[in-house]
Formats: sequence, structure tokens, C-alpha cells
Amino acid sequence: MPLFFLHPHVVPSLSLSLPPPSLYIYISVCIAEYISSRAEGKKEKMVEKVIAKWNCSGRVVEGPTNPMVTPLLTDLYQFTMAYAYWKANKHQERAVFDLYFRKNPFGGEYTVFAGLEECIRLIANFKFTEDEISFIREILPGSCEDGFFDYLRGLDCSEVQVYAIAEGSVVFPKVPLLRIEGPIAVAQLLETPLVNLVNFASLVATNAARHRFVAGKSKQLLEFGLRRAQGPDGGISASKYCYLGGFDATSNVAAGKLFGIPLRGTHSHAFVSSYMSPDEIIDKSLQSADGSSSCEDFVSLVQTWINKFQLSNSLRGIFGETNQSELAAFTSYALAFPRSFLALVDTYDVMRSGIPNFCAVALALNDLGYKAVGIRLDSGDLAYLSCEARKFFSAVEKEFGVPGFGKTGITASNDLNEETLDALNKQGHEVDSYGIGTYLVTCYAQAALGCVFKLVEINNQPRIKLSEDVSKVSIPCKKRSYRLYGREGYPLVDIMTGGNEPSPKVGERILCRHPFNESKRAYVVPQKVEELLKCYWPGSSDEPREDLPPLKDIRDRCIKQLERMRPDHMRRLNPTPYKVSVSAKLYDFIHFLWLNEAPVGELQ
Amino acid sequence: MPLFFLHPHVVPSLSLSLPPPSLYIYISVCIAEYISSRAEGKKEKMVEKVIAKWNCSGRVVEGPTNPMVTPLLTDLYQFTMAYAYWKANKHQERAVFDLYFRKNPFGGEYTVFAGLEECIRLIANFKFTEDEISFIREILPGSCEDGFFDYLRGLDCSEVQVYAIAEGSVVFPKVPLLRIEGPIAVAQLLETPLVNLVNFASLVATNAARHRFVAGKSKQLLEFGLRRAQGPDGGISASKYCYLGGFDATSNVAAGKLFGIPLRGTHSHAFVSSYMSPDEIIDKSLQSADGSSSCEDFVSLVQTWINKFQLSNSLRGIFGETNQSELAAFTSYALAFPRSFLALVDTYDVMRSGIPNFCAVALALNDLGYKAVGIRLDSGDLAYLSCEARKFFSAVEKEFGVPGFGKTGITASNDLNEETLDALNKQGHEVDSYGIGTYLVTCYAQAALGCVFKLVEINNQPRIKLSEDVSKVSIPCKKRSYRLYGREGYPLVDIMTGGNEPSPKVGERILCRHPFNESKRAYVVPQKVEELLKCYWPGSSDEPREDLPPLKDIRDRCIKQLERMRPDHMRRLNPTPYKVSVSAKLYDFIHFLWLNEAPVGELQ
Repeated sequence: MPLFFLHPHVVPSLSLSLPPPSLYIYISVCIAEYISSRAEGKKEKMVEKVIAKWNCSGRVVEGPTNPMVTPLLTDLYQFTMAYAYWKANKHQERAVFDLYFRKNPFGGEYTVFAGLEECIRLIANFKFTEDEISFIREILPGSCEDGFFDYLRGLDCSEVQVYAIAEGSVVFPKVPLLRIEGPIAVAQLLETPLVNLVNFASLVATNAARHRFVAGKSKQLLEFGLRRAQGPDGGISASKYCYLGGFDATSNVAAGKLFGIPLRGTHSHAFVSSYMSPDEIIDKSLQSADGSSSCEDFVSLVQTWINKFQLSNSLRGIFGETNQSELAAFTSYALAFPRSFLALVDTYDVMRSGIPNFCAVALALNDLGYKAVGIRLDSGDLAYLSCEARKFFSAVEKEFGVPGFGKTGITASNDLNEETLDALNKQGHEVDSYGIGTYLVTCYAQAALGCVFKLVEINNQPRIKLSEDVSKVSIPCKKRSYRLYGREGYPLVDIMTGGNEPSPKVGERILCRHPFNESKRAYVVPQKVEELLKCYWPGSSDEPREDLPPLKDIRDRCIKQLERMRPDHMRRLNPTPYKVSVSAKLYDFIHFLWLNEAPVGELQ
Repeated sequence: MPLFFLHPHVVPSLSLSLPPPSLYIYISVCIAEYISSRAEGKKEKMVEKVIAKWNCSGRVVEGPTNPMVTPLLTDLYQFTMAYAYWKANKHQERAVFDLYFRKNPFGGEYTVFAGLEECIRLIANFKFTEDEISFIREILPGSCEDGFFDYLRGLDCSEVQVYAIAEGSVVFPKVPLLRIEGPIAVAQLLETPLVNLVNFASLVATNAARHRFVAGKSKQLLEFGLRRAQGPDGGISASKYCYLGGFDATSNVAAGKLFGIPLRGTHSHAFVSSYMSPDEIIDKSLQSADGSSSCEDFVSLVQTWINKFQLSNSLRGIFGETNQSELAAFTSYALAFPRSFLALVDTYDVMRSGIPNFCAVALALNDLGYKAVGIRLDSGDLAYLSCEARKFFSAVEKEFGVPGFGKTGITASNDLNEETLDALNKQGHEVDSYGIGTYLVTCYAQAALGCVFKLVEINNQPRIKLSEDVSKVSIPCKKRSYRLYGREGYPLVDIMTGGNEPSPKVGERILCRHPFNESKRAYVVPQKVEELLKCYWPGSSDEPREDLPPLKDIRDRCIKQLERMRPDHMRRLNPTPYKVSVSAKLYDFIHFLWLNEAPVGELQ
């Protein structure tokens, strides 16, 4: 009996990797649902659904990370259209939609595809609750027939198939990221949430990749954007997809827990100004790093270092007296975290107070066998201050014979973006890590990616969406897409073909045509051919399903793919566009259909 | 016994307005928890907590709308600081933080404050789960002491007080939107989520208000941004706060359900291109509006209208033949929604196909006593096309004697923003409603508002945060703020005073000083004095708590406040800055503290 309380759509959300007991529970629930479904004579359907969910890979697809991602997270017109389709008995007609974008963001020539896993999670668990159905009934006109709501009640994605490019891939305009095949009414309901889930994910992952490109491989990149992000899961999504795009860590604890992203953070300005003077510190004792001895008065030990600095010929004169509130805060923080002491040094004055105070505490820690991690600069001229800090650290290393102290870490974090990173590189700096927030997570330079979802075929009839703006004309047909690689190992061109055309072959010359510009075409002899769209959701069909890899693997894929691109596509200034093409046959067909659909004007 | 399964933190999320039975359950749970707490000897504490939650207003504060808003939705450094405070036995020290922004967004001189309710929902339900505590233990160094985690286990916001400006108010830089008072460790943990919840909410509400300002009061404003928003609740938050800022409706069904926002939407281009020809339509019958008769072949009725257009002298020549796929789609949609027929007319060609097809269907509906709602334009020159469409509608009204047809609604929706609305106004247009998406919901013109959270007092000691950039210097002290109104009823100036200063009085002259610019000051004789900060969360204190009004009321407040502003603060081009000031006493104190904290330089 209690089994019936565990609805199968609840079970998958119980844990990320189901341990064996959950598997048993899940199967029990399936059996329970199977028994109840048999009573309703829906046996076959039920078995299909169970197979679809507990798929070939033997893994259940969890629900969306954000519980607010439900089948209601869509535009009203998807429901009005669904009703109109249902009313015309057209809702089961098989449609093919392409999800793609038209232009790379940030003035660049590449995009990182992200958001696929969340799309599949939604699709795999797509089911209306009674409460949701009541609400839809409430918002549609009273004249809508009951049968439609029964239809919604039975709706899921078992008749839908989703083909997609692997998440974390480098992708280009016009090439479908996802191809959704299924009954037109369901496919349309999916439009808004899928576009939503891909748009920002891909945008912010691309932004992260671009920041990594400018910062260089050797720097640590930390995402610090939660407070400035567009809403709570604007923040959570940003943390996830910035990691995917090549960042090393986040400050966002919830994202760390949800996705296993490394976490970073130490203290703020408020922490510094919450202290008045070192006299406040009551428990002043600190054990040495190896536990062999104990310093009874760490506060005094720090003070002796301040005094030594003031007596030192090479350091004196940089500061008169350091801020005592700051010194107290640093000392207190070191007492709490002697092994990971990193201090924010710009609350009062970086060179006159923050740096000497940090060094005094760091050297006191050093006396006890601990190694300070470093400083964070959050204002001012970061290039200049990082160089000055480095000089001070080196001077301390030399003056007091502390090996390695010159290499103490320097993190910078004030309103950084691609441009400021580039400017820092040009000026010369000594920063080891960047904490990047606002500009990264809100994609300030371009706050939206224009993904679209276009009908390309219905009942095996290709469809085209025309527009006076050629870049907005859709490429019709259920297509296949390939990435062709050249002799040097770089991807040369993406090509789309009709679904039934033979695939391009290694070593065989193929004509690649610009989809809309007659004169732009090139022969390519690929050295490697990669089919881009794989099946990520087979519905109840028996097509094998691609696994949804862990975030870490998606990140690795992204980093590898970015490294494999020809450098001129990647540069910040005037990058070379990567070529996206169609086969000769598809080209002819597009233009045949175009002329067929466009009305002929009449000049008067 | 079953009562124990209903944890009180679960109960509040059961429904938005608790019906009486839930109240009984809630009280039972409180009693149950009270009994169990008595066993642990925490009686007084428990009673306090129950009072704090089931507050003077007699209403429980629900949990955050987005279940992902938990105490973990914060930066790691809030936890490392909390540990350092705890370790130094400083965590219970009473701190005062101000949450404010430094600069109005979008080049304007005003901001709409939003996000308060979600902040209070978080605060009222702030409690770590065991799972969350385990995770925090995992990410902090192993050396952190157990006592800290026990402390976290007992943590809630019963010792916190929150004062805030009413949500939906027009607000200005530097004036605290929220003042958080409480133990420093808890207040710091709240920093990131509160800033997150206020930042985007206020930004997008302000953006909506600005769009409304340009569009004018008489236009319908529809938010259509879900698919382009920054993540799922980027979309949901945008829908909520655009409504707050003066929009009329959203396309986002989930937001409609969550917040009771009116919903709008009809069909997409894909719906149009999913049809091939009117022959597809099988069920062609349509009852008349009054139910008195039935048209057996609505498809033919539509066709007769197309024929009439082609024979008409005043209309012919505008088009040769309309697209049959489009005509089929419109007809089918009208059969499903005869009372709310609104057609997207730009799939093939607005004037040659979309408009005549729409009119044929609309007039066929008219024959049966229905009134078509209108058209939507989603591409091309919206000013020109709306005028041409209006002309066609008027010609139809005249030619066929259909009263009111000339006033058929025109909605426009392609990549609109403040600038394009302004340009449309300048060109002259016939648009009645705007559907606005990308630029509105992502705040494309400025994707982030820079709210900050600054320590202004600890243990009754005022604190200041210095910066080389004067605009970043914080205003110390636990303050009170007032809005002073002039003779014409407009707000004149906001003034901050020390907490113990007497409040400004109506008719009494008061000196208002710029906080940092010595020479900028003015005497004001207020005609009305409004205290801005009210108590929205008293914790376990017995201070009366402001109600959290329904969204509709917040929206009304916003609209009223915007209307009450002096027009020169509101204009798009070179608006006059609204004055924000401090009292003479506070001015002196700020500068005393500043000199006290800033190190004196030494020139060499």
C-alpha cells in the first residue's frame, strides 16, 4: 500500500545516482502502477512507458534541477495551439522541429552548447498534474471541450524523440542543436522551456569560455556572481554553466552542492570592518601546523612582525601605521583558518595597510609552520597593485629569508570582464586568480542568445519559415548534420544534408554550399567525419539512448573542443567565421520550397 | 502521531492563503514541536519561535516561491566568515547592515524597489537541514570545530529584524532599501540571497516601468520573454516583476499560476506553417455566437469573403492570391477559438497574404455574430505595417459595412525595447498592444543592478567602508530615512538621519546635505514627511510587522508612485537627478569617521 504513495515521477528525483535499494523501490512502483494501469486496460502503453523511463542505459532520468521547471513553464500560446490542433484532430501529426540560434554571441564566431541535460530531464518527466490541468482549464475559454483535458492528462513524451549535439560541444549558427520529433501538440508545448533551458546555459557557458580564452590556461578562474545574477537560478545556472565553460570554481554554495563544483571564498570588507582592534581577540592561542607546539599569544606574534617591518630598511616608508581594525580581522581569520589564510586587503588602503597587515599575519603563521594562501584585491588599479604587492612579497622573502613568499597568491576581483582581463594582460600584472561576477553571470556584454525553435517538417512534408530578413529564413526538412575535419585536425565546416542523403565519407570530395548565398560554395575532402546529432531521448522507440555524462565530463569535452578549433575562429578581434553549409541537394530543395511558398508581388 | 510528519517548515508552503483547517494543523504541529522541545528544556525559545512565525498579523510567512532559495544559496565566504566569527566568539555581536544600490539603472534617475516579499519569505523560513549542515561540514576545513555545526543547527532569524521600504516604491541611490539588524554571523549569511533577490527584481521592475513610460498609459503591455530569459526563474521572476512594474499580462503560464498574472497568447509561425491547405480541415461546422444557428461549412464561408475581397474595387490589387497554408491555419484557429480570434499575420507576407486572410476569417466570424480580436505583427516595419493594416481594416469597415472593424486590435512584437517604442511613437503607428520579450526580461540595456550590503554598525559602533571612489564610500550608522514632499505634492528629497535624531516635521525647515559634497545643501520645509523604513520582520521581538500585500496591490503602489514623481525626474533624455541627502549631524559624523579610519599618507 505505501508503494502507491511513491509516484514514479517522484522517485527519480530522490537521488542523483540511484543506489540499489531505490532501484527496487522504483521497480515496485512500476509494478504498482502497472497493476493499476491493467485495471484500466492500458497494459501495453504502461510497459512502454516504464521501458522508456528505465531505459536501455539502466538509468532513470532525474527531474529538472529546478523544481519550477514543469510543463507549465511555457507560453500560453502553446496551450491555445495545442487546443486548436486537438480540435482539428491534428495534434498527433508527426512534426519535426529544429532548435538553433542564428548568430554567435559577444561578437565572436563560436558558441558553447549547454543546457541539454536539463532539457532531457524535463522531457523524461513531462507529465501534467491534476492541479496543473485545472489551471489550464481555468485560463482557456470556457468553450474548450473536456476531451482536450483528458488528452492533456494522458500526455507525456513517450512519442517524442530528441536528437542533439553533445552538451559542451562548440557549435555554430543555423546548425540544429536539438531536433525534436513527435506529435505536433507535444513538440510545441516543449518549445518554450527547451529554448529557455538552452538559451542562457549556452550564452553563459560561451561567456565563461571567452573569459578563459583571454585569461589564459594558467590562471585560476572563480565565478563570484550569485548576488548579481538574474534571480536565484540565474545564479545557480550561471555557476553550473560557467564551470562547464572552463571556470575552476564558484562561490555559490548551492551550486557546489547540486553539481559538485569546487567552492571558493574567504571574507568580505564587512568582516574587516566588524573588528575594532586586536584587543578584541580573546582566544589568542594557535597550535603549530605539525601539532608539536602551541603559540599562546598569536596576536603578539603578529605584532612583532609589524614591528620588524617598521624597522626594516627595505620595507619602511611604505607605511606609517597599519589599520588596527584590519589587523585584528586578519589575525582572527588566521586563527580560524590557519591553513587557508587569504585576506582581502583593500578595505582601508592596499599598500599602506592591507599588504603589510597580511604579511605580518602570514609570517606569524609561517613561524608556526603554516603557509598563507594569499591576498585578494577588490578595487583600484589591479595591474599596478598586483605588481606592487608582488614586489613587497619578494622584498619580504629576501629580507626575512622566507622561501617562496614572493610567490604568494594574488586574486583580483573588481568588476572584471573580457575587456579588463585583456587590458590587464597588456599592462602587465601579477594576478594568479580572477574572481569574476556581474559581467560574467549576467552576460552583460550581450544578455540574451536568440535561440529559436522552427517547424521543419510535418507529416513528412518539409516546411520553411520565410522572412524578409534572409538570416531569419529557416532551413527546411528533417536533416542530418556533420562536422568535417581537415588534414591539420581542425574542424573545417559543418554540413547539413537531407535525412535520406548518404553521409559524407572520409577522403571523398563533397560540395558544401552556403544555404542562402548562391556563389559561396567549396569542395571539401574530409579527413574525419563526425555526425553531430545523436539520440538523447528515444521515447518509447527502441533506439539506443546516449548517456547524460557528469558535468565534469561535459566540461572536459568543452575544453578539448575549444582547444581543437583553428585559432583564427577564436580570436577576440575580427575572428574568421566558421563555415556552415548545406549539401547541393538540400540547397536546391530549400530554394525550390522558398519560391513555392513566397507570394509573387504585383507592381502597380 | 501523523502530526509529527508535518514539519512546521513544510506547512507554510502548503497553500498561499491558509484555509482554516491548515491553521488547525499548523497549531497542532506547533504544539507537537512545543511538547518535544519541552523535553529538551527549550520551552521559552520555542514559544518565541512560534510567535515569531505565527506573527501578530496572524499569518504564516510562506517559503520562497523558488524552492531552490535555501540558506545554502549564498557565497562560501559567508560560511567561512561565520566560522571565524563563531571561533572568535563574535558571532552574536549585534550588527546593522544596509542593502542599497549606488546608481539608478538604464541611464535613468529612478528605480522601482522589488523583491522584498521573497526576502522575507527566506528570512521567515531560514533553517538549515541536516543534509545542508553535512555539506557545509564537507566543504569547510576538517579542522573546524563541531560546536560550529551545532550552532548552525540551531540557527534561524528569530534574532533578526528587517526594516524595509515598501515593495513597489520608487527608490533612489544610497538610501537603504532594507536594513538588517541581528547577530553578525546570521546577517552575513543573508547577504548574498537578499542581494540576489532584490537586484534582478528591482532591475526588471524598473525596466518594465520605463517601457510603460514610453509606451503610454493607453497601450496594452504584454511580457513575452520566458524563452529568452536567464534561466527558468529568470523567466518567472521577470514575469512577476514586469507585472509589478506596470505590464498588463504575461505569456508565462507558470507565472500566471504562481502570481495570478493575466495570461496572453494565441499562436506562432509554426502553427501557420503546420497547415498545407484548407482542404485539411475536416470538422467545418461552427455554431453562431448566440447559439441560434450553425454554419455547416465555415471554410467555404471564409472563401466567399476572400472572393469578395478580390472583386472589391477598393481592396483588389493589394494582393493576388493569399497563402492557403496560412488561410487554413487561421480558419482552424477561429474554429477552435471563435470568441478570441487573434492571428499572427507575417508568416508569408503581411499585406499580400496575412491581412486579407485574417479579414476573411474575421468577417466570416462576424457573419456568425463573433468579433475577432485582432492581428499580431512580428517582423518588418511595424510603424508602416500597422498603419497599412489600419487602412485595410477601415476600408473593409466602409466597403462591407462592418461597424467597428476599423478598430480591430493590432499587436506588435518583434524585438521591442524602449528605443524602438520611442521610434514608433515618433514615426506614428497604429499599434494597440506590445508584446515585449528579450530586451525587457534580460534587461539587455543593463543586465545588472549593483545592489550592495554594507555593515554600518556593530555593537552600537558605527562603521564605514572607505574607497578611493567616493561613490563607493558607505554611509555609516543605523539610520532612519524620510521622503519629504513639497507644496505641489511631489517628493522633493530623501533624507537620512542618525537613528536617534528627531524626525523631520511638516512645516519645519530642515537642512538637507549631500552626503559627500560639502557645498551641496538645501533647506527644505516639507509639506509631508514619510518615514521610509518599516518593520517587515520583527524576529521574536514584539514590534508590529507590516503585512506583505498581494502582488496586485504592490503593482498599484508602483503605478501610483511613478505617477506622483515630478516629470523631469522621469524623462528619458537627461532626467534631473532626485536629491538624496543626509542631516547636518549625520554629515558631520560621516566625515569625522572617514578621517578617523583613513590612513594618512606619507609623501617621500
